[in-house]
Amino acid sequence: MTYCIGIKLDTGLVFASDSRTHAGVDNFARFCKMTVFERAGDRVIALLSSGNLAGTQAVISVLKQRNAKDDAPNLWRAESMFDAAMLVADAMRDVDRRDGQHLAASAISFNASFILGGQIAGEAPRLFRIYTQGNFIEASLETPYFQTGETKYGKPIIDRVITRSTCLNDAAKCVLVSFDSTMCSNLSVGMPIDLICYQSDSFEVRMRRRFDEGDAYFSALGKQWTEGTRQVFSRLPNLDW
Amino acid sequence: MTYCIGIKLDTGLVFASDSRTHAGVDNFARFCKMTVFERAGDRVIALLSSGNLAGTQAVISVLKQRNAKDDAPNLWRAESMFDAAMLVADAMRDVDRRDGQHLAASAISFNASFILGGQIAGEAPRLFRIYTQGNFIEASLETPYFQTGETKYGKPIIDRVITRSTCLNDAAKCVLVSFDSTMCSNLSVGMPIDLICYQSDSFEVRMRRRFDEGDAYFSALGKQWTEGTRQVFSRLPNLDW
Repeated sequence: MTYCIGIKLDTGLVFASDSRTHAGVDNFARFCKMTVFERAGDRVIALLSSGNLAGTQAVISVLKQRNAKDDAPNLWRAESMFDAAMLVADAMRDVDRRDGQHLAASAISFNASFILGGQIAGEAPRLFRIYTQGNFIEASLETPYFQTGETKYGKPIIDRVITRSTCLNDAAKCVLVSFDSTMCSNLSVGMPIDLICYQSDSFEVRMRRRFDEGDAYFSALGKQWTEGTRQVFSRLPNLDW
Repeated sequence: MTYCIGIKLDTGLVFASDSRTHAGVDNFARFCKMTVFERAGDRVIALLSSGNLAGTQAVISVLKQRNAKDDAPNLWRAESMFDAAMLVADAMRDVDRRDGQHLAASAISFNASFILGGQIAGEAPRLFRIYTQGNFIEASLETPYFQTGETKYGKPIIDRVITRSTCLNDAAKCVLVSFDSTMCSNLSVGMPIDLICYQSDSFEVRMRRRFDEGDAYFSALGKQWTEGTRQVFSRLPNLDW
């Protein structure tokens, strides 16, 4: 499984992804699920991967190969994040065309999906959720975040804290608590966690951290959160039967 | 969907269930999913239902009809909670035998499952999770609670707060927060919530409440929890990039 989240705030974007992949409990591994395409002063595009690893890696390799060629549309030449989302979808459909029938023969389907966000000079930051079929939706004022993978354990804290006006630092902390809640309750999501905060109009990634097992900040955050919520809990009014 | 939880503590048992049933978003209804068999001084048996409503109602009707007859095993005559769990399983299998083939013809399967707990004079309180197939597991020192249905949103708060030594009142509050978290993030779980706390060796239900839309205590609890966790959140240390 996987847990990825992308959030669009008034002041920028937050992205985070776990690193656990598995095909059964006796076959798990660590792979980074966050890919960033960055050209300082011009664009920052972040892509978070969910689904079958062969599929997501193939899509990213196709995107990178296309980026290296100047004679066809690619992420470096996209004029908008909408165009970037269509390029990701095109790559997904190309991989599906090649692999889909072979997967189908084993009753498997191409199931890669992505959270895509960033900013290209000339427009505001944008955030998309691209489905396995290559169609996609864009974050709005009402729904400023997208999750993929093992989304449920970490959703209540996001729903209680995040609004469009939350600052980048608070959103980053909230995302880390959301990962902590998920990993406490589910083994299929695992460290390291990759985290990026992108400040609007900066056109470069200035805040990026990887949190691995035993990370002092992440451990302190989880401990303080648990203790704090227990205290809140102890002050809740008693039930009158 | 459904959300039910049963918890076994050192001092007793806690049970809670939501009341929403639905067959698509345009066909939802309210049904109580908690059934209690109580004979003061002798036994308290609580049964929480999940799954297809026709199946769970049939199982409970079968159990009640058997309870009314003195010439065969039933929940009033069971000598242990283990025997009670077997009686529930027998009723499930009888319903499946009758309905299963007809459901299968429409590619549906019998999917009732239950949380069963309580105390019968002569033994300590016990808690079981009965699967659709009628096999079951019993709560242990290490895993003192069972959830069914839409379990993930409300699990982190349970995992952070509940231990075997939690008192009944705190466990009841924690369960209500767990329901609040679930209902904030998911529409398929809905009020009213039925809640029971059973104190060990009391052999009667002295604490029972139903929380319907707008319940003053439940609303205050949710508000205070949200505000409290936001405060805990605001005091978390900032991330050093």
